[in-house]
Amino acid sequence: MSFITTLSAAWRQRNSLLCVGLDPDPAKFPAHLQGQPGAISEFCKGIVDATADLVCAFKPQIAYFAAHRAEDQLEDLIGHIHAVHPGVPVILDAKRGDIGSTAEQYAIEAFERFKADAVTVNPYMGRDSVEPWLAWKDKGVILLCRTSNPGGSDLQFLDVGGEKLFERVARLAGKDWNTTGQIGLVVGATFPAEIARVRELTGDMPLLVPGIGAQGGDIEATVKAGRTAAGTGLMINSSRAILYAGKGEDYAAVARQAAQDTRDAINRYR
Amino acid sequence: MSFITTLSAAWRQRNSLLCVGLDPDPAKFPAHLQGQPGAISEFCKGIVDATADLVCAFKPQIAYFAAHRAEDQLEDLIGHIHAVHPGVPVILDAKRGDIGSTAEQYAIEAFERFKADAVTVNPYMGRDSVEPWLAWKDKGVILLCRTSNPGGSDLQFLDVGGEKLFERVARLAGKDWNTTGQIGLVVGATFPAEIARVRELTGDMPLLVPGIGAQGGDIEATVKAGRTAAGTGLMINSSRAILYAGKGEDYAAVARQAAQDTRDAINRYR
Repeated sequence: MSFITTLSAAWRQRNSLLCVGLDPDPAKFPAHLQGQPGAISEFCKGIVDATADLVCAFKPQIAYFAAHRAEDQLEDLIGHIHAVHPGVPVILDAKRGDIGSTAEQYAIEAFERFKADAVTVNPYMGRDSVEPWLAWKDKGVILLCRTSNPGGSDLQFLDVGGEKLFERVARLAGKDWNTTGQIGLVVGATFPAEIARVRELTGDMPLLVPGIGAQGGDIEATVKAGRTAAGTGLMINSSRAILYAGKGEDYAAVARQAAQDTRDAINRYR
Repeated sequence: MSFITTLSAAWRQRNSLLCVGLDPDPAKFPAHLQGQPGAISEFCKGIVDATADLVCAFKPQIAYFAAHRAEDQLEDLIGHIHAVHPGVPVILDAKRGDIGSTAEQYAIEAFERFKADAVTVNPYMGRDSVEPWLAWKDKGVILLCRTSNPGGSDLQFLDVGGEKLFERVARLAGKDWNTTGQIGLVVGATFPAEIARVRELTGDMPLLVPGIGAQGGDIEATVKAGRTAAGTGLMINSSRAILYAGKGEDYAAVARQAAQDTRDAINRYR
């Protein structure tokens, strides 16, 4: 089943636009997991099992695994999500960006090794850094467009002849590159007016929206700016505010409550 | 010792601007290595040991290791370079690009786990995607500026108000971001006029130049456009044309000849 089909079913069946980001930082783990073998995967599985019925996707951030030589734990975690929670797509947040045979190797890494359903990709190298990913027809490719960080404006907000660079990326992605319906875009919650603009430029394209919670993005403004006519189209990501809501042995239950509150807050404005 | 100091010494002592890119594709290995355990690392060590006195740097491409679950072989390879060929800097070609604590995790991956001397980074997310890397004071950070692929023009060649996007990246990198002297830029050999422009904008900043050989970039034009007054400033990369020059058990000796020819061709125009 294609990424977009799986994602659409998850939006509907779970009544949720919430994506939980899995950025496991061992220094923030509850005491009972500290120093345990496999703690990174165990911590994330606790979050996943407690929140899977409340989310439209999970988004593991590969850097947190790679820094700890824990690629095996990332494979184990994604295998667990697919086995125990079928129907919840996994977006590998890797922000890869390269061309030709190197891009193919990265696609093998993301889709065959880690078995992600979608991956985040950096568009700076242009069309031939996007195309190789599209050869995996059932996978999603989510391009950085307007990122939520302050420095995002350094390049993305430059005027490139009557429009901003991020608008050009949205137009290229929406009109020229998305020949197979596999592409989505990253647009930060810290810029609701720009979410609205990207929505205008891309029809019903799925938008991955980081930046609520810790980064200060407003849920009401984000949902109103980005929802489609069907009240979907968004994967609104929250990572730290959910993962580290609790600090004790009951961290997963506390995370569930935070996820439920966030999902409900989002649904209030759909 | 800092990356730039090591690189400058390598330029001088080895009389070379050649960087050998290590993009190991098992399908192209000589028959005697096919299917052997550790073949990826072994193949690369053969190239490294045959060419180390002819190069100013080695540039392993991480995607080729990650696609094959061979991060341990990448660690082993870089450890080998440092142990057997001290003074040859290792640039990890990873094109990472992220912010805040995620960028820090990627820096731990590149610098602490893999012990690279420098890393390639994608600038699309702006200043706060570059700054975290600079906390590793003895390391180099080489930003994508003008890439050698056709699609590179999709964004990098857009006019952003009297200059192209890649020129803006070069100016930001050269003037605003490079407060610590750790930054370099990637500029493709397929665009010599743009190498000259980047050189003009960045003083003596080190430029990593892919695209000679298989991609068609011209050595004479590249060297003349990019050399500094001292006749250095460039890491001119060749990967496939050297790695796969030979197909038999003598592949390393054949690679050495190809590397020597390329180094000498470069030196003719310094």
